[in-house]
Amino acid sequence: MTDLQDLAARIRYVLVRSSHPGNIGSAARAIRTMGFGRLELVAPHRFPDPEASALAAGADDVLAQAGIHADLVDGLAGSSLALGLSARRRGVNLPEISPREAAQQALAAAARGEQVALVFGNERTGLENDELARCHAMVRIPSVEDFSSLNLSQAVQVMAYELRVAMLGDDAPLSAPVREDPPADAAQMEQFYRHLAQTLDEIEFHKGREPTTIMLRLRKLFQRAQPDERELRVLHGILADAQRMARLASGK
Amino acid sequence: MTDLQDLAARIRYVLVRSSHPGNIGSAARAIRTMGFGRLELVAPHRFPDPEASALAAGADDVLAQAGIHADLVDGLAGSSLALGLSARRRGVNLPEISPREAAQQALAAAARGEQVALVFGNERTGLENDELARCHAMVRIPSVEDFSSLNLSQAVQVMAYELRVAMLGDDAPLSAPVREDPPADAAQMEQFYRHLAQTLDEIEFHKGREPTTIMLRLRKLFQRAQPDERELRVLHGILADAQRMARLASGK
Repeated sequence: MTDLQDLAARIRYVLVRSSHPGNIGSAARAIRTMGFGRLELVAPHRFPDPEASALAAGADDVLAQAGIHADLVDGLAGSSLALGLSARRRGVNLPEISPREAAQQALAAAARGEQVALVFGNERTGLENDELARCHAMVRIPSVEDFSSLNLSQAVQVMAYELRVAMLGDDAPLSAPVREDPPADAAQMEQFYRHLAQTLDEIEFHKGREPTTIMLRLRKLFQRAQPDERELRVLHGILADAQRMARLASGK
Repeated sequence: MTDLQDLAARIRYVLVRSSHPGNIGSAARAIRTMGFGRLELVAPHRFPDPEASALAAGADDVLAQAGIHADLVDGLAGSSLALGLSARRRGVNLPEISPREAAQQALAAAARGEQVALVFGNERTGLENDELARCHAMVRIPSVEDFSSLNLSQAVQVMAYELRVAMLGDDAPLSAPVREDPPADAAQMEQFYRHLAQTLDEIEFHKGREPTTIMLRLRKLFQRAQPDERELRVLHGILADAQRMARLASGK
């Protein structure tokens, strides 16, 4: 039982820009029924709110402990695997996985001691592309095409349910592929992307082009790779030397 | 696709003595997202109701076609398999099955042309024993013991989701990661590693250390990322600019 609780404690549900406090309350109840307790709210439109508390239906502890964050990077702090829920196929170069596969991946990471985030977008607009760019895969609940949008808390319930079933199952946690070192967390990745962006500027990579597209493309590439801390140190080292050369070249 | 619709048409969701019209609306939306449309209401406390329509969020067809019945026997008319949802173990001599098993049984019956009912009790009291006695098995969603009660529409969503996944077969159609472009081939990767090694030399990254270990580490990282050709072009471009800076710096 303690094992399950340890695993559950490493899995957080991140609600991004939720419009309706009732949905936050329903989501709290949904994860609580499945043995989870970590809710992270990124820029909620209204919270705390009596409607959230009413619909939590007793999962008040989950609401009371919910983290509130200004942006998704904060909400992902410490996590090494972020899985973003999306109803639609997007022009985003991310692997698309089912809730069941997502549960397996999340559980495997949690079993290795990593922190995992399930990320749910705004009720109407879902996750923006720059939010999905912070995720390692896109989870699609297999809804029908002509009526594809689940209520937010229903999507949370489906994921929490799949995770619960996977955790109770006997095959998942032990089959996790072993990595020498855990992947770097979200804050370390952001720091790397900042260093990378700065270096591209200094080596005059953009040549007048808009950097945004290139940075998104590079983010996707490195999100797929999930570098560990040691690998990040190597990459930082390479960037630092490229910067050094650029500064020498420009006579600074 | 027509096959799926035929199967879905043989599966009904029966809500017994529902107290909150909002839950009826949410349940309509939940089954609609998963490709179902048959809702049967047994002695609903309030229906039709504006709250039901609001929460159906566009699944008005499901509400409009919902049958209204005085008792469960009516609601089950024509069905040969009835599966009753229950959060608690009861003193009822019924097989207890998981939502996944229930979906398999329901689908097998529907595939034989039979009519199947999923039966959900009142929000507070669940299914009464005389209602469970009309069911062939009891479905228990594996909630935690100290907080076992899912919201009614959440329970409907979980069952509808399991049925949808079962109808789609193994989740194969979604499991292939969707990539815009295939990964670069081995020769292209080798060319990239040569360019990378050469650049590391030129920006004086190694500082007397043996390059082999670093190159192996970088290979592992980029093998995991599996860059496509476009991404490789970006990486080559970055390396070329770093080289240009190094050459300017050394006055070549």
